[in-house]
Amino acid sequence: MKKSLADIKVTVDAIVFGYSKIEGVSVLLVQRKYEPFKNYWALPGGFVEADESLEDAVRRELNEETGIKVNYLEQLYTFGDPGRDPRQRIISIAHFALVNSSKFQQLKANTDAENAKWFNIQSLPKLAFDHQKILQTAIERMRAKIRYQPIGFELLDKEFPFSDLEKLYIALLGRAIDRRNFSKKVLGSGVLEETNEYAKQEGKGRPSKIFRFNKKRYKELLKNGVDFEI
Amino acid sequence: MKKSLADIKVTVDAIVFGYSKIEGVSVLLVQRKYEPFKNYWALPGGFVEADESLEDAVRRELNEETGIKVNYLEQLYTFGDPGRDPRQRIISIAHFALVNSSKFQQLKANTDAENAKWFNIQSLPKLAFDHQKILQTAIERMRAKIRYQPIGFELLDKEFPFSDLEKLYIALLGRAIDRRNFSKKVLGSGVLEETNEYAKQEGKGRPSKIFRFNKKRYKELLKNGVDFEI
Repeated sequence: MKKSLADIKVTVDAIVFGYSKIEGVSVLLVQRKYEPFKNYWALPGGFVEADESLEDAVRRELNEETGIKVNYLEQLYTFGDPGRDPRQRIISIAHFALVNSSKFQQLKANTDAENAKWFNIQSLPKLAFDHQKILQTAIERMRAKIRYQPIGFELLDKEFPFSDLEKLYIALLGRAIDRRNFSKKVLGSGVLEETNEYAKQEGKGRPSKIFRFNKKRYKELLKNGVDFEI
Repeated sequence: MKKSLADIKVTVDAIVFGYSKIEGVSVLLVQRKYEPFKNYWALPGGFVEADESLEDAVRRELNEETGIKVNYLEQLYTFGDPGRDPRQRIISIAHFALVNSSKFQQLKANTDAENAKWFNIQSLPKLAFDHQKILQTAIERMRAKIRYQPIGFELLDKEFPFSDLEKLYIALLGRAIDRRNFSKKVLGSGVLEETNEYAKQEGKGRPSKIFRFNKKRYKELLKNGVDFEI
């Protein structure tokens, strides 16, 4: 090596999206206990330890700062511009997850975080560091992803009326969808199977069929992609 | 901070895919001058300097080690498992690019690299570190990407017969495609426009139309995605 290596520190950050039928899409934030950005809300995360993988570091930090455990984590992007942290050069490998937020009743903050809380993505506080940009990148990735991958397995009840899946997509996309086309595409993909149950409609209308995911087909579509044209 | 921070070093690596009509798809490799993995072929890359962005680091390393400049770079994935480098904990942010390899006549190696060379992706040497895994990830990403984004603008001639675009997709995917469906999808997407020129066919057959990309539509599809169903 001809010159001394730059002193760059490595962190991970987690964008955990929560979904519930009632509250829509939220993101898990922690309030910082220390400077810089003391008392600001931020994405959970922290420094990677010497002998843990990046994903293990995310899981550890999430557990320490918020008390939650997530099944599926996906690496999003690495943010590394000089100056993104006022302390020194720090690069952060961001990961995202999507969970059913109504199943996590109890958030608990520890260590470097003062407080942990779900915020609806429509009404976010001002975030520390470049976390607004990281969160925006995660929202865009999540929205792009659900156009060509099935979603909902861990977010909906085991059996559900079709309107629950519509509501999920509308909430995640943050906009209306072409319902007729969506239903044609989803049902045509074979990712759902009908049960013999019907849901009672409130007020008028026929009772609506109850569906469940076809697990095998769901996995195939996860792997090979699909176009829901939404 | 309660404990001392882990000493983790940060590198970038570049997966530069080259395409030429004659040679198909190749990847740019450099031969290592120093231990570890002395004399092995590896992806170009190296340590990030204190005041450069990750992308600037990739461009600098590419220029130093191979003499080439690329227009478009995309961050691929960050590889950070403990033990991936025998020296110490090193994480690497991999980036990939796709260039017309016939336009780079002159590769020149400098600094840490002994030699720089294009290798057809069908006949690769044994690679240093976890670079085989990084390269495989890049190939998969590139193949997934061209299913929902147009490609070819910088890889084909300005005007070309449709068969050149087919050949490009077949080479990048490494497999046959459904030509009738592909042509229907591509022409239906509006990404190509006809010229008044025809190419002479070798031997039998009608002369075939010459196309060019519609730049505006190409950019739209890059942004919004498309499904070529290939």
